[in-house]
Amino acid sequence: MAGGAPKDVFQPVTDAVRTEVRTLIGEARHAALASLQPGSGHPLASRVGLACFADGTPLIFISALAAHTGALLADPRCSLLVGTPGKGDPLAHARVSILCQAEVITDAQEISAARKCYLAAHPKAQLYIDLPDFRFFRLRPLEASFNGGFGRGFRLEAADLLKLEPDQGDRRN
Amino acid sequence: MAGGAPKDVFQPVTDAVRTEVRTLIGEARHAALASLQPGSGHPLASRVGLACFADGTPLIFISALAAHTGALLADPRCSLLVGTPGKGDPLAHARVSILCQAEVITDAQEISAARKCYLAAHPKAQLYIDLPDFRFFRLRPLEASFNGGFGRGFRLEAADLLKLEPDQGDRRN
Repeated sequence: MAGGAPKDVFQPVTDAVRTEVRTLIGEARHAALASLQPGSGHPLASRVGLACFADGTPLIFISALAAHTGALLADPRCSLLVGTPGKGDPLAHARVSILCQAEVITDAQEISAARKCYLAAHPKAQLYIDLPDFRFFRLRPLEASFNGGFGRGFRLEAADLLKLEPDQGDRRN
Repeated sequence: MAGGAPKDVFQPVTDAVRTEVRTLIGEARHAALASLQPGSGHPLASRVGLACFADGTPLIFISALAAHTGALLADPRCSLLVGTPGKGDPLAHARVSILCQAEVITDAQEISAARKCYLAAHPKAQLYIDLPDFRFFRLRPLEASFNGGFGRGFRLEAADLLKLEPDQGDRRN
């Protein structure tokens, strides 16, 4: 009970599943971020605008005025929930929970690349992209759990999210 | 930087704001839950179906097969993010982050009340409401942060979410 779901709840991860998850993340423009409140360690759920680097690594752009920024600077462990429910039962819609390690982007060249990715996904962010209290964080995926709707559960590794090798078939399983 | 936003970012909480937040939570049918992975303490973001008791206390109904159930049983500290973005910049849309304490509901009479509330919000949950591995958790609000769109930030106490006293005006501030 304590540690999550038994192994046999999960289905084999195929390339079709990898594509489905990468598309879900790549097309998402927002996510829920779980971070840790500094000091108390209480979990904190908040909304973030989302974009991805070319390799699929999630990228967020957040204000120092928001509690999650202080949280990630104090403890980089975090999690992203990606996927928005449509009509009907919200649990019938695909979503992926990704455990991540946050890294603030400080290198000028990397900031420039991040800025380009973020603006491509969020043209309206032009209004605040140059405000001095905002920062880019790269969220390095560690592992993920994809739920494609009732009875469709998958456990994914970082490589499943970041690299798609269409020639490889299902040999990883 | 470490502890979140400075005080003066937040605006005074009026009854109109309380009503706005209570309506946002009361009408929501899903939320993002931030919980703590047992053992590692890594934050975990996941989707939950949401309903509310009559006093506004959030209620979730979750499967033992899902990682968040083990997480809440091991450590009841959690957070809910409520509010779904519409079109345009996802950060322009209202959302509330609630810090909560989870309590599994075990009393037969309370289960019956929870069942009624949950089914009223989620008629399709009839399909799985009686499965033995699902449980109801009451999420007692501790405090909340409401973001009504750019420049509209509010810090709320539990009483702001749970009890609306229309006669009281803004005397609390």
